[in-house]
Amino acid sequence: MVQGLILLDLWVSPYAARVKIALAEKGIEYESKEEDLSNKSSLLLEMNPVYKKVPVLIHKGKPISESLIIVQYIDEVWSHKSPLLPSDPYERAHARFWADFVDQKFQAAIYRIIWATKSSEEKEAGEKEFIECCKMLESELGMKPYFGGETFGFVDIALIPTYSYYHAHERMGSLSLVEEFPKLTAWVKRCLERESVSKSVSDPHKIYEFVSQLRKHKGLE
Amino acid sequence: MVQGLILLDLWVSPYAARVKIALAEKGIEYESKEEDLSNKSSLLLEMNPVYKKVPVLIHKGKPISESLIIVQYIDEVWSHKSPLLPSDPYERAHARFWADFVDQKFQAAIYRIIWATKSSEEKEAGEKEFIECCKMLESELGMKPYFGGETFGFVDIALIPTYSYYHAHERMGSLSLVEEFPKLTAWVKRCLERESVSKSVSDPHKIYEFVSQLRKHKGLE
Repeated sequence: MVQGLILLDLWVSPYAARVKIALAEKGIEYESKEEDLSNKSSLLLEMNPVYKKVPVLIHKGKPISESLIIVQYIDEVWSHKSPLLPSDPYERAHARFWADFVDQKFQAAIYRIIWATKSSEEKEAGEKEFIECCKMLESELGMKPYFGGETFGFVDIALIPTYSYYHAHERMGSLSLVEEFPKLTAWVKRCLERESVSKSVSDPHKIYEFVSQLRKHKGLE
Repeated sequence: MVQGLILLDLWVSPYAARVKIALAEKGIEYESKEEDLSNKSSLLLEMNPVYKKVPVLIHKGKPISESLIIVQYIDEVWSHKSPLLPSDPYERAHARFWADFVDQKFQAAIYRIIWATKSSEEKEAGEKEFIECCKMLESELGMKPYFGGETFGFVDIALIPTYSYYHAHERMGSLSLVEEFPKLTAWVKRCLERESVSKSVSDPHKIYEFVSQLRKHKGLE
């Protein structure tokens, strides 16, 4: 256990899962504090006054927020083991581009589907975006085992926690990732075989239940 | 001139201005190719097929997209002069957080005001967001000459190109930055005294004309 290393955590958050995977890859133990979003802790409000969101990693009393920034911080501080970003500047920029793509496009498309109103148009638009994203990711992955090449790294960490959500999306939608995107599907399986991932990502069945209940609560069902 | 270093550029883009400032700080000469967004070049479409947007920096035939990623790339490749990001991992994470804040919050608020419909509510909501952002930035800057401390760096580069736009916003809105935010105002002046900045940011008067014409064209006036 690294003294004074605390993660403000949330089981449904794919962003918190990224931080957990990165710490597990580095073999770093820490204290996890589960937040209740309906009653945010004073520690969360104090540590992330700008966004008031998880994840926040607190190291030596100082907070780091925004999941991709936290993962880079972890990679820089604990650089002795399992490098997550490549050392070459071009490859680093390339990895940052695709990790950012996951946030800007892929995750946005998933949320659009999951929180779509009953209107089928809205859901269809989201699904179209999602398929476009999957095509780009399938092409970017190509024949490589991981996005960065031979070893699990930054883009894999950015993307794999969304798995629990696109499971929910598959159950809600009409698409099958397995048939349409064989490379991505094999990549998901490959990632889930890593203990760092399987222990960190949300249980997809629980996410499905969570999303279904929240949709009912919001009057979307 | 660095052989084969090309910037796909656009004079109105605050994102392209970031790249120009970073290259000027490093003393790197390059070829600028101005894009026409109504008729994008085949080079732009080929080099940034995902977003089809400027800026793109092409180095040794390989493209780097997304302005903050490009600035980090420049800092890593030409690390011999004028470091833009701090060397300490915590300070780096802190700088990345605030640069990202400029994109996620500040720039978004500016665009919301500038492209607001005639409805005053929409504009007021944007102005409220903008003021909140300015308060946070004023507090983050504090008594330091630059966001990172004594030297001009990553967050300054992320933020200063928006200056041309909030000039347009001031002329369109009811607020005066000078009175409300003396530290930010002094910081703007300090940044504009640097040749790297003054030669790279868009002329605020031209931006005002550009925004006004586009608003008319869109039927917003």
